[in-house]
Amino acid sequence: MADKKNLLLLFDHPTEPVFMDKGGNGTVFDVPASYVTDRYNKMCKKVQRRVSGGFEKNVLVKEIPIPDLSCSMRLGRSEQFSLFLESHRQMACHLIDVFIKMPTVDELQSVAVYARDRVNPVLFNYALSVAMLHRSDTKDLGLPAFAQIFPDRFIDSQMLRTMREESFVVERSAARLPVHSSVKYTASDLDVEHRLWYFREDLGVNLHHWHWHLVYPNTAPDRSIVDKDRRGELFYYMHQQIIARYNAERLCNHMARVQPFNNLEEPIAEGYFPKMDSLVASRAFPPRFDNTRLSDVDRPINQLRVGIDDMKRWRERIYEAIHQGYVLDANHKKIVLDDVKGIDILGNIIESSQLTPNKTLYGDLHNKGHILIAFSHDPTNKHLEYAGVMGDASTAMRDPIFYKWHAFIDNLFQEHKRQLSPYTEEDLTFPDVRVQSIQVESQGQVNRLTTFWQESDVDMSRGLDFVPRGHVLARFTHLQHHPFSYTIEVENSSEATRYGYVRIFLAPKLDDGNATMLLEQQRRMMVELDKFVVTMPPGSHTITRDSTESSVTIPFKRTFRNMDNPGEPQNFLCGCGWPQHMLIPKGRAEGLSFELFVMVSNYEDDKVDQKPEDCECSIAASYCGLRDRLYPDRKSMGFPFDRQPRSGSELLEKFLTPNMCSIEVIISHEARTEKIPELPDHS
Amino acid sequence: MADKKNLLLLFDHPTEPVFMDKGGNGTVFDVPASYVTDRYNKMCKKVQRRVSGGFEKNVLVKEIPIPDLSCSMRLGRSEQFSLFLESHRQMACHLIDVFIKMPTVDELQSVAVYARDRVNPVLFNYALSVAMLHRSDTKDLGLPAFAQIFPDRFIDSQMLRTMREESFVVERSAARLPVHSSVKYTASDLDVEHRLWYFREDLGVNLHHWHWHLVYPNTAPDRSIVDKDRRGELFYYMHQQIIARYNAERLCNHMARVQPFNNLEEPIAEGYFPKMDSLVASRAFPPRFDNTRLSDVDRPINQLRVGIDDMKRWRERIYEAIHQGYVLDANHKKIVLDDVKGIDILGNIIESSQLTPNKTLYGDLHNKGHILIAFSHDPTNKHLEYAGVMGDASTAMRDPIFYKWHAFIDNLFQEHKRQLSPYTEEDLTFPDVRVQSIQVESQGQVNRLTTFWQESDVDMSRGLDFVPRGHVLARFTHLQHHPFSYTIEVENSSEATRYGYVRIFLAPKLDDGNATMLLEQQRRMMVELDKFVVTMPPGSHTITRDSTESSVTIPFKRTFRNMDNPGEPQNFLCGCGWPQHMLIPKGRAEGLSFELFVMVSNYEDDKVDQKPEDCECSIAASYCGLRDRLYPDRKSMGFPFDRQPRSGSELLEKFLTPNMCSIEVIISHEARTEKIPELPDHS
Repeated sequence: MADKKNLLLLFDHPTEPVFMDKGGNGTVFDVPASYVTDRYNKMCKKVQRRVSGGFEKNVLVKEIPIPDLSCSMRLGRSEQFSLFLESHRQMACHLIDVFIKMPTVDELQSVAVYARDRVNPVLFNYALSVAMLHRSDTKDLGLPAFAQIFPDRFIDSQMLRTMREESFVVERSAARLPVHSSVKYTASDLDVEHRLWYFREDLGVNLHHWHWHLVYPNTAPDRSIVDKDRRGELFYYMHQQIIARYNAERLCNHMARVQPFNNLEEPIAEGYFPKMDSLVASRAFPPRFDNTRLSDVDRPINQLRVGIDDMKRWRERIYEAIHQGYVLDANHKKIVLDDVKGIDILGNIIESSQLTPNKTLYGDLHNKGHILIAFSHDPTNKHLEYAGVMGDASTAMRDPIFYKWHAFIDNLFQEHKRQLSPYTEEDLTFPDVRVQSIQVESQGQVNRLTTFWQESDVDMSRGLDFVPRGHVLARFTHLQHHPFSYTIEVENSSEATRYGYVRIFLAPKLDDGNATMLLEQQRRMMVELDKFVVTMPPGSHTITRDSTESSVTIPFKRTFRNMDNPGEPQNFLCGCGWPQHMLIPKGRAEGLSFELFVMVSNYEDDKVDQKPEDCECSIAASYCGLRDRLYPDRKSMGFPFDRQPRSGSELLEKFLTPNMCSIEVIISHEARTEKIPELPDHS
Repeated sequence: MADKKNLLLLFDHPTEPVFMDKGGNGTVFDVPASYVTDRYNKMCKKVQRRVSGGFEKNVLVKEIPIPDLSCSMRLGRSEQFSLFLESHRQMACHLIDVFIKMPTVDELQSVAVYARDRVNPVLFNYALSVAMLHRSDTKDLGLPAFAQIFPDRFIDSQMLRTMREESFVVERSAARLPVHSSVKYTASDLDVEHRLWYFREDLGVNLHHWHWHLVYPNTAPDRSIVDKDRRGELFYYMHQQIIARYNAERLCNHMARVQPFNNLEEPIAEGYFPKMDSLVASRAFPPRFDNTRLSDVDRPINQLRVGIDDMKRWRERIYEAIHQGYVLDANHKKIVLDDVKGIDILGNIIESSQLTPNKTLYGDLHNKGHILIAFSHDPTNKHLEYAGVMGDASTAMRDPIFYKWHAFIDNLFQEHKRQLSPYTEEDLTFPDVRVQSIQVESQGQVNRLTTFWQESDVDMSRGLDFVPRGHVLARFTHLQHHPFSYTIEVENSSEATRYGYVRIFLAPKLDDGNATMLLEQQRRMMVELDKFVVTMPPGSHTITRDSTESSVTIPFKRTFRNMDNPGEPQNFLCGCGWPQHMLIPKGRAEGLSFELFVMVSNYEDDKVDQKPEDCECSIAASYCGLRDRLYPDRKSMGFPFDRQPRSGSELLEKFLTPNMCSIEVIISHEARTEKIPELPDHS
């Protein structure tokens, strides 16, 4: 029987023929002659002997009858696969279905080997990832990081060239030098938006977004893959939090909050030049010039037709549904947008996902917005151009327009939330439980956090095709902060042990004009930092918690890691999660005031009924949920800040009930870079 | 003493370190340790032993004190070198000067080896090319074709990827397959302009333009390099002929003549997406979207500042000079724009070259137009973008705007020509000489020419860096025609032998509305096909001439050639010249009528006094001149069609004097492709 870990080797070197050596140690797939593409049919074995250097480790591939893959092969090998395109999703669905239905790992391996050189490499990666994630016999395999397989979507094209040089000129990987990512390569200081390069172009931020959409596909052959607990609400909340975080970063950089992209007919002031080459397409990701206007998209090749008028129509119908308090399903049945499920239904409608109750009526607003923007340079395929970065989840967050678009989308959700009754004091309090004080401590400093720059490496050799083997490191400069810990004093004045759900948020103290913010504004900037359960025996009690334990982040080493053991079992969901190094905003050199908010709610009210977790990976649930399980909080996501504050609590201090507390925390930024020490010269 | 042919190896693999193997047979430069860049200092010898496979052929490089190269090193290695930028021209000048002043080939080789890994690779190529071309001890070396060293400027980026795959997977070059160039990859049929892809994106057409600007640099350390005989007039004529040819092709494709780009404030309707990656910059050539407007360019990094207002000012002053009949030099002295030298002076002014009499007053119109267009996507360097294809002579002709821009430029020259008195009958006749008849014959057909598609290969391996060695062929599909021959019956009714200068032109018979063209329009569409000297003893006489002998073209094999013997002596100027396969327009499937015009003028009046040619390469003089010699025709370029026709000769038939003749020739296009036979499988 096949060792299922070998499946992971199929991700390596995605555009090389499948019979080339994999994993860096001469391993080759013993591909049946009938599986080899015509070009290489006669030379395959000879090439394998050469590339494996005589030490080949053969992975046997069973020859089986191959199901019809013609649907998935309709997309050219060098075309650009995009999940925002319905036609591409259909092709992916088909392949996922084939992979999932293979009765054994052996047969899955066979059909994957066959498909690999015939379908588009990104489509292949996506379909095999989703299938492995949802097959019981493969779900324990840790998938390789997407950035290591497709480095081209995360780095400047100039780095690819330098990596090629290192690999070709320097034989031993030990003597190769890391290739540095320029920190500011997409724009100059003339571009005010470029102050946020460290956020928009961060490796971890973009990986998070890609992982999220992989874990939550919006279409799948089996509806259960899409229909995960509260996926529509999570779509809203995860993106709402991105906007909140982005706005905090903007404030740190003396910039006003992002303007929602309300008027689709207005030119988009912000141009973006990604300077990345797609290795699969062998084409650059197209730029968008400053002041580009959207046009109706009509691209028969993508079976794609969407007009600005369609978008307006969908937007107005959704607003109308929100204001009427119900949506209509395909059978004209009313579905009420209530306090609990309303936001989830709206999420599915607005995204839209396969779960939308009425796609004809409410359309496909969010996805088609990405499409209209992604094709603004060539809306009719007149110039045979592929989509810009907005057309792919792994690259969209690089573009300033992503945030304007999602600020617009978020406003729809907020309009619904505004229809709901504010939480009453009773909703918010936890009788007998009082938060007496909170503080954070970092590097011996109290209520002062510090950010700085740091260099970190990622081995990208598995994604470099047609170069000699061996590690090649990409060295990124990214934001980092000193780890910190929370100390929370709580008092349980009852006689019994209580279970509390601690909810920690952070928001700027003052607005962009240095004025105190009304809570109605501030709540939308509340960034979730952590959420965890505590046991509180009667009496006073000190809770401590480390920033690295955060329920929104994945550990640092999940972003910057070297996949020397690609087969190491790990939960795939662990790839989804906000990167730990981006947990807090950058702050300012002179320090910027934030409000740190802690609430302890009654876990008995909040918990959901499900059996205890069966995997070791329960991190990052706040934005990513838990695999195969319910979202671990019965409250609305973003609680207690997801609704308008009750009357009389226009300011945060008035909003506080005894089980809440807030303090001022200063975040300072040190403009220094923590470098990786140079290794002694091995050459 | 160094074998000077080794200098040619320095062009190979332009972005690889200089110590890597060259020429495909293990030859390496024995680089002094002090010349190796820091990165590779300690490993250079070890790498050389590896890459040469133990069979290294060492080229000794003498260690000499290196002159100061800091000026030329100001341009980053991965930046984009452009001759349209004054600051880049200065850096190139400096390096050319260093190269030219090296007393021996040995020392030239030393400084070139040192410079190669330190200056920008394209700047290096340009400076070494110009220097070798102008040094008496190296001018007999044939330089490698630019397309073989920088294939990225001539082909779709997807081809580069496929070539890399072929080189990496298939070890023996004999088993490698040619990589096909897509014939229609830059746009779809929705783009009417794309009908002319075969002209704008032709390898030979673009090489011609690049070569022309290399032979006629507009700035050089030594003024004599710029001040070649009638270079200003040649600038006008070569580009005028491009427009004439382009308009003929447009007519073949049912398109109206190109509209001059008169209004710089009007959006440019024609977008262009080159889909090419610069290997040196590791960046894609930026596109221009449909309807992009020009903006004032202010890019301190390029020491570049030009406004649309500057352009208008220069244009108006030039028009004023034309209408007044003189220009003012820097000392306010009048220089008359007379019949003979006026056009040459205007050429230097309009281009402008170093020879312009007054750059302050007349500016830099043509060059800055290229610049304004090339940077329309990022005029202020806000987005850190490089120039579009209009910023480089090797790529500019791909873009539809090139022709609109040069149609505007040509109108300036034509305005001057309109001020001159028409040629009188006396100016045009050749007493005693009569052209009795002309005909062309091709494939047994009389006065019918046929075009079709053909596939041809170019080995591009020398320009592929960081891939295993061995030939890799790029297979182009290009226009071709069956060769043809002219038969011209002339009668010399005098008693003495006469020497005639035979001038052959071709122009469409009818205009885009199917109406007879007035000669004033038709003359501007007259495409020069040939010009040659004949000896005519008294009596009747039959002249025959093959199309392949044309004075405007270089032979087919100079465009599509395999440089297996890069050191083969050949005159560099031979690289300049219109490609033979593009000699005649495409025609139409059903045939399109052209007027073939022949004039025999008196060579005694036309010839220039100079000693006979001393090199075997005298081809393509009509557009490229003769190396180190006078332009071989005393008449104005384009004669007899460079001026308005005399009164009474509004139609071509009225214009004809006895020593002229014209006939109708039909050009048909067969929509078939002549393929290269597949080789038997060697794998």
